[in-house]
Amino acid sequence: MTKKTTTALSHHNLTDVYYRDRSLVNDIIAKGQTPDFVAISAWHILGRELSPAELRVLNAILITLMEHGLTPSAIATRSIYMSAPENLQGAVAAGLMAVGSSFVGTVENNARLLDRIISVPEGQRAALAAEIVTDHRAQRVFVPGFGHHLHKPDDPRALRLLEIAEENGLAGSHCAALRLLATEIDAQAGKHITINATGAVSALLGEMKVPVKLMRGFCVLGRTSGLVAHIAEEQKRPIGRFIWDLVDKAVPYAPEEEGGQGND
Amino acid sequence: MTKKTTTALSHHNLTDVYYRDRSLVNDIIAKGQTPDFVAISAWHILGRELSPAELRVLNAILITLMEHGLTPSAIATRSIYMSAPENLQGAVAAGLMAVGSSFVGTVENNARLLDRIISVPEGQRAALAAEIVTDHRAQRVFVPGFGHHLHKPDDPRALRLLEIAEENGLAGSHCAALRLLATEIDAQAGKHITINATGAVSALLGEMKVPVKLMRGFCVLGRTSGLVAHIAEEQKRPIGRFIWDLVDKAVPYAPEEEGGQGND
Amino acid sequence: MTKKTTTALSHHNLTDVYYRDRSLVNDIIAKGQTPDFVAISAWHILGRELSPAELRVLNAILITLMEHGLTPSAIATRSIYMSAPENLQGAVAAGLMAVGSSFVGTVENNARLLDRIISVPEGQRAALAAEIVTDHRAQRVFVPGFGHHLHKPDDPRALRLLEIAEENGLAGSHCAALRLLATEIDAQAGKHITINATGAVSALLGEMKVPVKLMRGFCVLGRTSGLVAHIAEEQKRPIGRFIWDLVDKAVPYAPEEEGGQGND
Amino acid sequence: MTKKTTTALSHHNLTDVYYRDRSLVNDIIAKGQTPDFVAISAWHILGRELSPAELRVLNAILITLMEHGLTPSAIATRSIYMSAPENLQGAVAAGLMAVGSSFVGTVENNARLLDRIISVPEGQRAALAAEIVTDHRAQRVFVPGFGHHLHKPDDPRALRLLEIAEENGLAGSHCAALRLLATEIDAQAGKHITINATGAVSALLGEMKVPVKLMRGFCVLGRTSGLVAHIAEEQKRPIGRFIWDLVDKAVPYAPEEEGGQGND
Repeated sequence: MTKKTTTALSHHNLTDVYYRDRSLVNDIIAKGQTPDFVAISAWHILGRELSPAELRVLNAILITLMEHGLTPSAIATRSIYMSAPENLQGAVAAGLMAVGSSFVGTVENNARLLDRIISVPEGQRAALAAEIVTDHRAQRVFVPGFGHHLHKPDDPRALRLLEIAEENGLAGSHCAALRLLATEIDAQAGKHITINATGAVSALLGEMKVPVKLMRGFCVLGRTSGLVAHIAEEQKRPIGRFIWDLVDKAVPYAPEEEGGQGND
Repeated sequence: MTKKTTTALSHHNLTDVYYRDRSLVNDIIAKGQTPDFVAISAWHILGRELSPAELRVLNAILITLMEHGLTPSAIATRSIYMSAPENLQGAVAAGLMAVGSSFVGTVENNARLLDRIISVPEGQRAALAAEIVTDHRAQRVFVPGFGHHLHKPDDPRALRLLEIAEENGLAGSHCAALRLLATEIDAQAGKHITINATGAVSALLGEMKVPVKLMRGFCVLGRTSGLVAHIAEEQKRPIGRFIWDLVDKAVPYAPEEEGGQGND
Repeated sequence: MTKKTTTALSHHNLTDVYYRDRSLVNDIIAKGQTPDFVAISAWHILGRELSPAELRVLNAILITLMEHGLTPSAIATRSIYMSAPENLQGAVAAGLMAVGSSFVGTVENNARLLDRIISVPEGQRAALAAEIVTDHRAQRVFVPGFGHHLHKPDDPRALRLLEIAEENGLAGSHCAALRLLATEIDAQAGKHITINATGAVSALLGEMKVPVKLMRGFCVLGRTSGLVAHIAEEQKRPIGRFIWDLVDKAVPYAPEEEGGQGND
Repeated sequence: MTKKTTTALSHHNLTDVYYRDRSLVNDIIAKGQTPDFVAISAWHILGRELSPAELRVLNAILITLMEHGLTPSAIATRSIYMSAPENLQGAVAAGLMAVGSSFVGTVENNARLLDRIISVPEGQRAALAAEIVTDHRAQRVFVPGFGHHLHKPDDPRALRLLEIAEENGLAGSHCAALRLLATEIDAQAGKHITINATGAVSALLGEMKVPVKLMRGFCVLGRTSGLVAHIAEEQKRPIGRFIWDLVDKAVPYAPEEEGGQGND
């Protein structure tokens, strides 16, 4: 009978800190090692070492999720930073809260569809993909991982990420399932609809056996450095007040309009 | 006369996304490139490419700031994750808010002391370090970047980070200023007091010319992956409720005790 | 054709601020008025004035949700406050993130069950309640709004809130539906299981026609003052470090134990 | 020798919950009581009961801090809510993080000036106020609590709050010290500069003996219901995407401009 330990992630004593079972200073950032934050992060999060191919793919994913201009996430970070510049971490935290269901949550929803397709014998997967697409169309909802309001005909990030998986020998059943969905979506829509970045990310994290409910963690990590970059720029060329003015003055309040659509 | 642009960090069109002036898919994660999240993050945040030596040092810093067991930061993340598991990003955000003045803020405070020492001619630096230490002792406050309640006689992370700077030819005036302070602290205390991890981090980020007010951004980035690891473990072996019970039952409320120390 | 306005909540000019269509200083906190934060908050959030009876009930709800000792929410707030005391708002924000699915989310889930019961003719409601309880038992999940690990046989808060609704003539169909569920749960379980505070809150907010997806907003408001109280106490009698030590030392890491239950 | 208790704020047993030394259900929301969230919150936070006059003033303060349209705080809340609507509490938390040094922090800074003025004998206060104003002018910084970019010649909220203090017999030394500063500022500037809302709030909280470092807690409480109102409106008439588009398209990126002002 083992007693319960609180965490296996880290322990420490007077002269050392351990990450899982390795000494931080004698093993991980030891003399002769080339320290690699992404490799150590993945090992620490997942409990296993990634292969060099997996690491290349993970780096590409993190870079892709880092930045997309003045998104709601960056707007929140900028707005908070101008209000509380003494509190850089709060501004990052505010922006990270945008890594939610509307955008990044599609990673998880797409991953669940891919898992469902993969769970049936190979010969039945195309039919299941067709059924999934038909169902979504019947309910008039987008298939998660497809379509993008800013990128047409293709989300360049999705195409490139899938290529990177192939270049690194990592394009397996998840990528194949994603392509089955893509083929069906185009066929049923009668036009081309792009796989988007979150669709590709979900397939690639799936290939790396990242649990669906943990996928969002990697999205958060990638986004963090992008938000720090927005703060760095805000420190040099602040636009927080410009955003405020822009929104505050956008459309003057029209009292007469209120009558018919009160919040009651 | 130039008109003001909102951001130089990113722009996009139908078929491409740019990070600063580079195409994400054609330049940054392009065919033939080995994508490196830390290198791209640093370039994106700082607006310049780090040298290979700087990158090795930055990776070591990020790894070092990632984890230290069940700290207040990890406790907050675990507590929030058990309360709102649908909201992984909120749990990370909650924990990141601990990257504040009490712990990581010492990076900035130490960096300001180092900048002050470096700002005087080399021959006067030891004297200024002595004066700084004397002042702190007179005010009975710790010199930021020194001492650690869990690591004695030395914080192993600090020693190793300073070595890594030397191995990579990056130990310059900031590291020298830190050592001047260390020598004076020991001399005036009459015993050895360790340089701690935040002291070493501030010297190394200083060598890389990271602005003081941006240093905390790198601390946040490093911490993020550690908090994701805590969530990953919480998903497999939850201890959130154990922490709650432990604290809730710690010491029963003693009404009779309240009289003398009311919150009035 | 009306053009879209950004918000009907507030507009301002050089000499006045309006909350919806009322002048803050000339109408809301005007001479001769008794300013009532809860009444104005409810009117501002819901777009209608609450009756005196509704206001009494809402005050009781907010007070009830304010505090329950060292919960995960309070632990997070305390842990963050000790780490970043310069950033009181971040500590409150961290604790508020615990107002999620595991605890307060049951308000919404229970409210949806009550709405479902109310949507059928009165004569069929008991049967539907029975069916709902049977379904939950079959799936071996708790009916949201019932049971409490700290309060037995009854959650005193739930009983009192339901009484307050009755005292104020507000106990209508939602309270009746909740009691139908309660009767069925006891019958099928063969023992008494308490309605808990969130169950009662959901019935009462339902009686006040608060939309289900907005109910959590009132929970957040009530919780906020409780978390500010924890910070006030932390300023006078800090226990943040005590919590940290307690958790950090709870159970030493047992490397030998790790083998069989790795995080892979 | 007393042993340390964790908290005096709350304890609970199987059948009751206590807020400080009072039973929630038998004392605070007991039969015959009119439950008052603001009164109980203030008592819980401050450890003493407010007088009816103080309560009226506190209600006016909370109402005043609740709302000011599409501020950075509301923009952050709206942006996060559109990104993660399943996570209402995160959107509130994001907006609350704007209650920082740039806006609400002036409450604290002004309060410190008032405390300084009050700490000298009454006959010397005008001279000290003059000296404080002279110092700020010499350093070319605003006196905290004065001036407003949207309200001229007077911030109507400040005037009304100070009136309310007088109507309730609460205008004492803090309000007098604020007026001394106001007189000096106008005299030295040669024109009228308004006391702003945060200036008045700091004087009034000072009259109520709220510790300076806790003042921000009341600002957070007032703001919370305003942010919930913004979410309620976002649920009915979303503008999150409109804000995003507005900012994203504000001014197109001009690569040629970048040369001279790189982020290096």
